[in-house]
Amino acid sequence: MTTVSSLEALIEALRCLPGIGPKSAQRMAYHLMQRDRPGAQNLADALQRALLALRHCQRCNTLTESELCERCASSRRDPSLLCIVETPVDMNMMEQTQAYSGLYYVLMGRVSPLDGVGPRELRLERLLARVCDGIVKEVILATNFTNEGEVTAHYLTEMLKSRAIRVSRIARGVPVGGELEFVDAGTLAQALRERRALSE
Amino acid sequence: MTTVSSLEALIEALRCLPGIGPKSAQRMAYHLMQRDRPGAQNLADALQRALLALRHCQRCNTLTESELCERCASSRRDPSLLCIVETPVDMNMMEQTQAYSGLYYVLMGRVSPLDGVGPRELRLERLLARVCDGIVKEVILATNFTNEGEVTAHYLTEMLKSRAIRVSRIARGVPVGGELEFVDAGTLAQALRERRALSE
Repeated sequence: MTTVSSLEALIEALRCLPGIGPKSAQRMAYHLMQRDRPGAQNLADALQRALLALRHCQRCNTLTESELCERCASSRRDPSLLCIVETPVDMNMMEQTQAYSGLYYVLMGRVSPLDGVGPRELRLERLLARVCDGIVKEVILATNFTNEGEVTAHYLTEMLKSRAIRVSRIARGVPVGGELEFVDAGTLAQALRERRALSE
Repeated sequence: MTTVSSLEALIEALRCLPGIGPKSAQRMAYHLMQRDRPGAQNLADALQRALLALRHCQRCNTLTESELCERCASSRRDPSLLCIVETPVDMNMMEQTQAYSGLYYVLMGRVSPLDGVGPRELRLERLLARVCDGIVKEVILATNFTNEGEVTAHYLTEMLKSRAIRVSRIARGVPVGGELEFVDAGTLAQALRERRALSE
């Protein structure tokens, strides 16, 4: 099959994309080569540029093109608040709430012993150095409410316990607009346990 | 957002892949830049190589790196049989049956008026020239049994009607290993209509 080797190599290369199996990779390769060569060229260029340009922000660990990302470099953010998220996508979600004006630290993962990801792989010593800059007063844990996210939050809580820093966790509960009928029992139980007093 | 422009450009570029929306593109971009830079480099290279190397086979229209694809160049195939398929993937499926030793013509699409794909866009005049080489005796229509595939088969039948060439269509019916209980009524009706005589 030497005559189609570059096509086969492309199909194989596409499988590095998360969630893409052999069938999808094949479909994508044929689509690109048959219907969207400009798109394929654009993708090749974008990959190359991103590989050359992107590195980690020295302070918050997110992907950026400069030493410090835009947010860490901004003077408008409250440096006493540090929100810890798993991924840059989560950071974007937090930003979209427009309810947070502090800084971030992006773990770029989560503690997941089954996948061989522990505190060392996440380089949590960097986070610790970041938290102990003398300016951060509160760390807000905004890891996911998955098993791994919860384990990560628990680990971080333990790690930060002895430091003179307040550690908080974003609230669990019934989603805004949610109907009790369609909320799972675990969420509802948490919403009950973590109920807020409205009047004494 | 100038500081993350190459990341945003990559997310946008990934959306040229079929079935990939903004959320998936974002996830893919972060995955590549955070977890799989070698994979990203490999993908960029593979795209570039495929773009440079791949063109259409002069005889069967599939993607290849030479003038003629391996199959068209082979002397072991029966040149009197020509199987018409929609895509190179379909051609591969036919090959996997090991039940066909003729040649192929790959439409690289299907007649689909709603998508603005007609005989001209499929360049069916090339197919016609291919069929009328004086060697092809039978054309086997192996387009999909979707609406578009059936329209394409119908169109090709009409186009080839006045030529002294036999035109056939692969059979519809109950899949091998299929149970009547789980076959849809349309398929079963076709299987009944196109029943084969086992004895006179």
